[in-house]
Amino acid sequence: MTTVQSPLLRAARREATDYTPVWFMRQAGRTLPEYRRLREQYDFFTLAQQPELCARVSLEPVKRLGVDAAIIFADIVTPLLGIGVDVKLVESVGPVVSSPIRTLEDLTQLRELEPEQDIAYVSETLRILRRELPETVALIGFAGAPFTLATYLVEGRPSRDYTQVKSFMYSEPRVWHALMERLSAITITYLTAQIEAGAQVVQLFDSWVGWLGPADYAEYVLPYSQRIFQALRGRDVPLIHFGTTTAGILELMATAGADVMSVDWRIPLDAAWERVGTEVAIQGNLDPVTLLAPREVLRSRADDVLRRANGRPGHIFNLGHGLLPQTNPDEIAALVTYVHEQSQQYRQQGAA
Amino acid sequence: MTTVQSPLLRAARREATDYTPVWFMRQAGRTLPEYRRLREQYDFFTLAQQPELCARVSLEPVKRLGVDAAIIFADIVTPLLGIGVDVKLVESVGPVVSSPIRTLEDLTQLRELEPEQDIAYVSETLRILRRELPETVALIGFAGAPFTLATYLVEGRPSRDYTQVKSFMYSEPRVWHALMERLSAITITYLTAQIEAGAQVVQLFDSWVGWLGPADYAEYVLPYSQRIFQALRGRDVPLIHFGTTTAGILELMATAGADVMSVDWRIPLDAAWERVGTEVAIQGNLDPVTLLAPREVLRSRADDVLRRANGRPGHIFNLGHGLLPQTNPDEIAALVTYVHEQSQQYRQQGAA
Repeated sequence: MTTVQSPLLRAARREATDYTPVWFMRQAGRTLPEYRRLREQYDFFTLAQQPELCARVSLEPVKRLGVDAAIIFADIVTPLLGIGVDVKLVESVGPVVSSPIRTLEDLTQLRELEPEQDIAYVSETLRILRRELPETVALIGFAGAPFTLATYLVEGRPSRDYTQVKSFMYSEPRVWHALMERLSAITITYLTAQIEAGAQVVQLFDSWVGWLGPADYAEYVLPYSQRIFQALRGRDVPLIHFGTTTAGILELMATAGADVMSVDWRIPLDAAWERVGTEVAIQGNLDPVTLLAPREVLRSRADDVLRRANGRPGHIFNLGHGLLPQTNPDEIAALVTYVHEQSQQYRQQGAA
Repeated sequence: MTTVQSPLLRAARREATDYTPVWFMRQAGRTLPEYRRLREQYDFFTLAQQPELCARVSLEPVKRLGVDAAIIFADIVTPLLGIGVDVKLVESVGPVVSSPIRTLEDLTQLRELEPEQDIAYVSETLRILRRELPETVALIGFAGAPFTLATYLVEGRPSRDYTQVKSFMYSEPRVWHALMERLSAITITYLTAQIEAGAQVVQLFDSWVGWLGPADYAEYVLPYSQRIFQALRGRDVPLIHFGTTTAGILELMATAGADVMSVDWRIPLDAAWERVGTEVAIQGNLDPVTLLAPREVLRSRADDVLRRANGRPGHIFNLGHGLLPQTNPDEIAALVTYVHEQSQQYRQQGAA
């Protein structure tokens, strides 16, 4: 095996790096000017189906912000759209599904994903990106996790408290488990296709799973996350597991089997790392709102993250959730430089 | 000191009880028919200013559901309304403030609270309730915590992610701390008046504080929660501290000094109790959505809470957040009976 040149890939494998690698959720998108110009011409999904343009969207933050990874430009509902589910991205609402899932019959909407036919543009974008990206910059693929996809499919639209999907899960366990089985199969196929097209790391976004208590997570979600990570394990691609408000279910989530646990800002990074175990890497966990703060506040919070990571191999610097649309790109770029410099100094000072 | 007869008061003091006492956040209100009938005649704040009617609203769940406490019928913005802040409860939105706080000058809206003039109806309601309630049923007063009140005052309305209030806190620390000082003073006066009028327990609702990371909580919120609990400490009334999504900041919150920590369903009750320390009592932590589930699911989740509390003195059974409006009162009443019976059996079986 040749030595991996990308700091992010090394960190995901808990190998030593000269500085802490950085990327940001939602870096390919709404905060950057070129993307905004493209969106004036195309709606989201039209844009998302044009590989050359998608590659530009993914490359923009690498050039403009100096991040250590590019992430494929897509939405978590992309594979659902690929198999023909009628889902629309409604401006300032989010994904809206025309026929929410209620019964076993409704599951016929969710046929198997056939990557070459359904999401060829995703694979093509990844191939372009692998050609364009320097070896030092990692290429990240991603998918929405079954629970998070199910919140949209059952509720029909974004929710504040997930009451409907949770009471559905309790009341219709047979439909629920069948739904999760289908979504797991789709997710495995989708991520496998991304890996085969060149994704070097993949992240499973279970953004809303933290609305479940531990017993519900264990019963209704964990088996499917385990199945997905298990299916991808043989491919020598680090797997990242992301959620928000997960401070109470972290230990359980860690048993799903990812290589990297991504935590939000609601828990101190060191406490999170201790609880998931140091045999996994950790990603996070700056509050995205700090990027709207005066620079000294932002830096003090970034320092806090680095101090808690303590230079230990296996930390990927990121936010606790996606960049806010109103974030100034210059602030983001300055933060990347700051984290690179500080983490390098930190290592040189030999912090224990 | 005479022996306290109320199981809830005993539990709040970590004294042994024959069964686990139960109450529910939002029990006085939207799920019950008499309340709904009253709301057809009066808007919320008109109703909230009529002591005889408010007392009926507070007594209804005691009779109908069999809970071990009555809670004053009010909103967290009641004291703000009392001092003349222009805040309206907009149907299916929540509290909307006409002139959000942005500058030091805006703070002139927040004069000191004068209970006899501003919220006499709250004190009068509590006096009626103390006369009407049997000694076995505890009377709970409450207030919104400064941070949670500030989310409405700064954002102007309910928020999904509290971006505006958080970036305000970072950018305008002088205004922020002055705002928190004023809100703390108002809260202390308000809760003191409730205690003097007969409240036997008080709960501080910091419902949205879990959107802050630990460093922000420690810097911008904790000193004020400490100040409030400190000011009320001498009055021999147990103090409950409530928040949601607090699994990552529980230890910090516990240093604010309440007698009872109230946690949501996102953390196992035993893990929470261990982390806050067994020298405080614990309240919670059933997911309100389980009350919409089939009864066997609801009971298995209630059992889980009781099993984790393990019959240890100092557990008050409650939800992790308020009752959902669509909850069937018969299910709530059945749950109260179930928790009483199961917890009594649990004690008799002598679980260790």
